[in-house]
Amino acid sequence: MDTSTVLIGVDWGGSNLRAFAIDARGRAGGQREIACPALSLAAGGHAAVLDRLIADWRRPGLPVLVCGMAGARNGWQEVAYCPCPADASALAAGLLPVAADIWLVPGVRYDAGTGIEVMRGEETQALGAAAAVDDIMLICPGTHSKWIHIENGQIRSFRSSITGELFDALWSRWLPLVGPAPAQTDWAAFERGLAAGHATPLLSALFSVRAGYATACLRPDEIHDYLSGLLIGAELAACDDMAAGRPRRIVGAAALSARYAHALALSGHRATRLDAAACVAQGLSSIWQGRR
Amino acid sequence: MDTSTVLIGVDWGGSNLRAFAIDARGRAGGQREIACPALSLAAGGHAAVLDRLIADWRRPGLPVLVCGMAGARNGWQEVAYCPCPADASALAAGLLPVAADIWLVPGVRYDAGTGIEVMRGEETQALGAAAAVDDIMLICPGTHSKWIHIENGQIRSFRSSITGELFDALWSRWLPLVGPAPAQTDWAAFERGLAAGHATPLLSALFSVRAGYATACLRPDEIHDYLSGLLIGAELAACDDMAAGRPRRIVGAAALSARYAHALALSGHRATRLDAAACVAQGLSSIWQGRR
Repeated sequence: MDTSTVLIGVDWGGSNLRAFAIDARGRAGGQREIACPALSLAAGGHAAVLDRLIADWRRPGLPVLVCGMAGARNGWQEVAYCPCPADASALAAGLLPVAADIWLVPGVRYDAGTGIEVMRGEETQALGAAAAVDDIMLICPGTHSKWIHIENGQIRSFRSSITGELFDALWSRWLPLVGPAPAQTDWAAFERGLAAGHATPLLSALFSVRAGYATACLRPDEIHDYLSGLLIGAELAACDDMAAGRPRRIVGAAALSARYAHALALSGHRATRLDAAACVAQGLSSIWQGRR
Repeated sequence: MDTSTVLIGVDWGGSNLRAFAIDARGRAGGQREIACPALSLAAGGHAAVLDRLIADWRRPGLPVLVCGMAGARNGWQEVAYCPCPADASALAAGLLPVAADIWLVPGVRYDAGTGIEVMRGEETQALGAAAAVDDIMLICPGTHSKWIHIENGQIRSFRSSITGELFDALWSRWLPLVGPAPAQTDWAAFERGLAAGHATPLLSALFSVRAGYATACLRPDEIHDYLSGLLIGAELAACDDMAAGRPRRIVGAAALSARYAHALALSGHRATRLDAAACVAQGLSSIWQGRR
């Protein structure tokens, strides 16, 4: 790590622990990653795991900022959610010190009227993604996808969909019946699923997998990508009203982001894909600079 | 079995094998049931299993009619679906002989415009349920719930929802996290779930379980019945337009039917609950009498 590092950034989520050496302009230099879910460690174990990953980077007075599920109940330590709307200063005010030079970033909570929304980690990506623009819809595909509206550096609202978790739950049931996913994405099957997910209430659309299998209208090897398209189509149908008139940005894993970009393109929307590490580094930098 | 039996009826579904001794008026007399999924037997095994259950009932010339998943691919033998609209005569015309005096009842297929719908077993319940009325909406809750419109003895249309399978898939994931279901139904939690399932797109409503858990707005022991209400609420929101102006009838397992009746009552609809065995017996009787 070179001497331009002013901040160590950490994104500790439900699967992986990632660390970045961040310079004064919010750019990620060195980057390290290990598989280590933030919620699977015994109480008190987080500091030692993190230290093993970045011990050679640390020096007294160099701040370490940790966002993600590490701040959840059953994580490193629970950090109170910051209410929405939230900007970098509001998140900075909620930083929770957990060790010398180490702070946890709060998640964000939003009362959507129909229910409570929460996120941990995506708020930091959102601040980074919006650093250079006025008003965007940030789409974060994943286990619990988020559509986040950010305007003038402020997270205004967001909506979550359980898309990825539902895919996992159903695919793990159906895999023994239909066999493994194809090696390459079957875009035709994906598009048929998209159409079904757009047109039909989700509980009925999901039955179309069973009906397609029973009537041989769907081949077993098409079901993986049909289901993927169906769920992404349902998410777009439920969320795309939030994006009206706003540029859409996608930040997430490459293969999954490509599916969302493809689905949006079919609806006539060009969505720019952003680098997740760059967004997190920029977001953590903004939060650190947002202290008063 | 007394001598008034004119037909042996069999409902062989995804979990159980049920047999009924049916009289000339379509009433079920003797009834026997064993756990035996129609799709889990090796090819050629069905006749022997059924014979063990009803050997003492059989006599030459006494017909045995089998409805349900026994007619599916991977069942006893695949029976071609009967197209919708379908009445007792149409189903009778599709009866498939599989052994001496034994026939399989075809399922029904419906092209709903947005996709193909199929059922095996519920068509027989529907004919039985509608035997005495002109025009009803029959609701069959279950793994794959069906809403069936029957008018003048004819199945006109139906819609399936994957409600029960989705409940199983999600509850089996969440059970280790939140602990077992309460011994008694928590109707308050069920009603909160109903409201969420009615008001919010399903992918977002399902995230409210995660958010409710993370914010302690939902207690772990409330999640089972909240999820049940949420999915049933989503099914009602998606299907209840089919029922407009028609009397609603429910046929299915007692505890699950009670949940649907409760949910419908909160929407201002009184739904009569029918006995499943009586409906199947009456339906098989109608089909047998529908031969030309």
